[in-house]
Amino acid sequence: MKKLENLIKTYYGFPKKGIAFKDVLGIIQNSEVFRELIIKMSSHQIIRNSEAIISIEARGFIFGSAIAFQAMKPMIVARKPGKLPGELIEGNYNLEYGKNSLNIQKEALKKFSSYVIVDDLLATGGTADCVAKLIRENNRYTSGLLTVVELLELKGRYRFDFPVESIVKI
Amino acid sequence: MKKLENLIKTYYGFPKKGIAFKDVLGIIQNSEVFRELIIKMSSHQIIRNSEAIISIEARGFIFGSAIAFQAMKPMIVARKPGKLPGELIEGNYNLEYGKNSLNIQKEALKKFSSYVIVDDLLATGGTADCVAKLIRENNRYTSGLLTVVELLELKGRYRFDFPVESIVKI
Repeated sequence: MKKLENLIKTYYGFPKKGIAFKDVLGIIQNSEVFRELIIKMSSHQIIRNSEAIISIEARGFIFGSAIAFQAMKPMIVARKPGKLPGELIEGNYNLEYGKNSLNIQKEALKKFSSYVIVDDLLATGGTADCVAKLIRENNRYTSGLLTVVELLELKGRYRFDFPVESIVKI
Repeated sequence: MKKLENLIKTYYGFPKKGIAFKDVLGIIQNSEVFRELIIKMSSHQIIRNSEAIISIEARGFIFGSAIAFQAMKPMIVARKPGKLPGELIEGNYNLEYGKNSLNIQKEALKKFSSYVIVDDLLATGGTADCVAKLIRENNRYTSGLLTVVELLELKGRYRFDFPVESIVKI
């Protein structure tokens, strides 16, 4: 999907010095490319094999919910602290630039047995690993990780013991 | 859509005292109801009449991108400060609980002539109004506002001079 790659713009020094930020938002500005991408991601074995999708705030929501719609899968979310109501579980992670936490609604996670993690980008894999740990700690199963972009040189995929798939490898 | 209404849970005192928070996340946990909702929203005149969708971080992304996919419309986003790279335009708004700002990428907004604003909830309408002002200030056109839920007693819809539609009126 060469056209897709051309829609991903790199911003150097965002959100801080030394980071080359990959902006995937150009993809949704092209409805044909976005449609093709979502159909491709939705028909992936990694989605079919999973009972539900878990998408990561906030860009993960954009791809996760369109895949959930197209693949007819339920979706739950992992969000930044302070955003979700109800009883929560919380995990911490280090990311490429800084430290953060993620929350999942306890009741939501209990509903389904297996999850495919969906996000826009796989860098070091810190956020996805945080989500996978929360899933495991709550006796649920991660069936895979699916992202739009993967930064190969950061080798994020090698920390996971489940299938990892990405559409654009940079 | 009675089934849809039953999936919206109210949390009292979140995110702060005196607020009755409407949690729409239960909708996406039911793939059939979510599918029905997105098809209904996508076929709405307000979507058909617009060149593009603008969705508001973060729950707006969940509904906006699925609608963008189904209706074959491009989408751009309005995000919290610090989240978007590139040249930005910024607006401020008061919300039901506090004050905040929203950013839009200048280049993205320029791409399309008319926008329908998509969000999960219409309360006082502060966020949508902020987005509509940014659209107008940049010589673009807001063709309407479409939300999943509308809190009728807050009368948010009356501040807008464009069509406002919601699926669940509470």
